[in-house]
Amino acid sequence: MILVNGLPSEHVRVFDRGLTYGDGVFRTLLVRAGHPLCWPRHYDKLYADCAALDIICPPEAILAAEMAKLIDETPDCVLKVIVTRGESQRGYAIPEHMEPTRILMVSPAPQYPASYLTDGVRLHLCSTRLAVQPLLAGIKHLNRLENVLARREWNDSEIAEGLMLDMDGNAIEGTMSNLFLLQGKTLHTPNLGRCGVAGVERERIMDLAGRLGMTVRVENLPLARIYEADEVVLCNSVIGVWQVRELAGKTWQAGKLAARLRSLLDDDCD
Amino acid sequence: MILVNGLPSEHVRVFDRGLTYGDGVFRTLLVRAGHPLCWPRHYDKLYADCAALDIICPPEAILAAEMAKLIDETPDCVLKVIVTRGESQRGYAIPEHMEPTRILMVSPAPQYPASYLTDGVRLHLCSTRLAVQPLLAGIKHLNRLENVLARREWNDSEIAEGLMLDMDGNAIEGTMSNLFLLQGKTLHTPNLGRCGVAGVERERIMDLAGRLGMTVRVENLPLARIYEADEVVLCNSVIGVWQVRELAGKTWQAGKLAARLRSLLDDDCD
Repeated sequence: MILVNGLPSEHVRVFDRGLTYGDGVFRTLLVRAGHPLCWPRHYDKLYADCAALDIICPPEAILAAEMAKLIDETPDCVLKVIVTRGESQRGYAIPEHMEPTRILMVSPAPQYPASYLTDGVRLHLCSTRLAVQPLLAGIKHLNRLENVLARREWNDSEIAEGLMLDMDGNAIEGTMSNLFLLQGKTLHTPNLGRCGVAGVERERIMDLAGRLGMTVRVENLPLARIYEADEVVLCNSVIGVWQVRELAGKTWQAGKLAARLRSLLDDDCD
Repeated sequence: MILVNGLPSEHVRVFDRGLTYGDGVFRTLLVRAGHPLCWPRHYDKLYADCAALDIICPPEAILAAEMAKLIDETPDCVLKVIVTRGESQRGYAIPEHMEPTRILMVSPAPQYPASYLTDGVRLHLCSTRLAVQPLLAGIKHLNRLENVLARREWNDSEIAEGLMLDMDGNAIEGTMSNLFLLQGKTLHTPNLGRCGVAGVERERIMDLAGRLGMTVRVENLPLARIYEADEVVLCNSVIGVWQVRELAGKTWQAGKLAARLRSLLDDDCD
C-alpha cells in the first residue's frame, strides 16, 4: 500500500512541484517488527528540511497515523516519506496558498550480503563531484541528479557504495550514506555546510560517540585524510554502519569501529 | 488535456524518478495558431539533454503526434514536454531496462504587461547563486530548486525577472531566461559550461545575430560587465526578448536591441 495525502494511491498529479522542480524533501527509515526506528529524529529532520525550503511540513500526528496503517500491513520494511511543496501551475513562483503533498511508501528491506557487516565493503571513488550550494547543503531534497550520476559510475556488484568529493576535493559522503573516519580516539566527519546530506544516522553517531570515549570533529576532509585514517565507516538509517575496507586501491585492516557504532546505535534507538 | 505516455491522464506514478530524484528533463515552447514554434530545435535540445543524462528520448514522431492532439484542442498555448528516466524501485541505481515517461501538457500563454515589450523590464538581483556543476550545466533538467529559491526572493509585481550569478559572481541567466549584453556591435552571452540552462532562444540568437551585423561572444561575464553594457536583454521561448531597463539601481535608456532581436527571431522561426 502507498498513501498519497492519506489515501491509498500510487499516483501524484503532474502539477506537483515535486515532479516539475524536485521541490520537496524525503526521509528513508527502517521499520523493524512494526517499529519505525528513530521516528522522532526522522520527523525532526523532515520538519527542519521543510522549514529550510519554506515547505509546510505535515503534522507529526498525521504522518504517524498514516505510517501506522502501512506498518500494520508490512511490519518489516523500509519506509519512505516524501513531502513536496504541493501543486502549482507552470512557473517557479510559489502561489500563496500551498498544500504540501505527502507520500508514504514501503519497500522490502534491502538484502545486502552479510559480509558487508562482518567484513566491510569496497568503495568506488566517484568522479561525479558535488556542487557547492550552501542554501541546499544538508537538506535531503528531491534534487538528486548528482547522486544518480555518481551511482551510474559503477556496475560491479562487489562494490557497495561510491565516495563523493566536492569540487575542491574534500570527501563529503557516499551516494546514499554519510562518512566517518577514526583517527586515534577522534571521529572526524565531513563538514556538510556547503554540500551533502546531513543524515539522521550521522547525527545519532555525533550525539552518542562520547559514550565510546570518542570526540567528534566536523571539518573539511580532503581525500588524503581518508587514506590516512585508522578506520573509515559509512552509515545511514537503512544500512546501519559499514566499515570501508577498500577505496581506489587503498585497503584497511578489519577494525572494530563499525561493530561498536552499530551496537551503540542499536542500544539507543528510540 | 494532458497526455502521459500518450494517454489522457493527469498523473504519474510515485515510482517515477522524475518525482523521486528530479531525474528527467523538460522543454517549454509557444504554440501559436496551431504551430509549435521552433519545434525541431526544441526536439533537438530535448534529445541532447536526454543524451547528456543517458535518458532514452522518445522518438520525434511520437511526441509530434501527441503534440498535434493537444494543439488541435488548444491552438494557442504554452506546451510543456517533460521526459523522465522512467520508474524504478527505491535507490539511485538505474535498472537495465528503463522506459522513459513522457508528459505533454498545455497551459494558457502567460499575459505579461504590454510594457515589457514596449518599455522593457525591471530585474531583481538574486542572492541565490547557481552552484557550479559542469556535468549538469546547460541541461534543462528537473532539479530546479535553485530557481525556485531565487524566484522566492521577490514578490513585487513590478519586477519581471531575477538575475542569477554563479558562486564566483559571474552573471549567468535569469531564473527562467537567458541573457545577452550589447557592447558596440558585439553581443556577449554568459558561458554556460559550469551552470545555467542553455535555452533554445539563446541558441537561435547566437545563430542569427550575424544577420544584424553583430558578432556573438560566449564568455564569463562578471556582474560589472552587465552594468557597463550598452543594452541588456533577456530571452526565452515563451517571452521572446525583453530589454532590461533596471537592475539594482542601475538603469538603461530604451534601446533597439530587443525589438531587433524579436523581429529577427519572428522572421526565422521554423
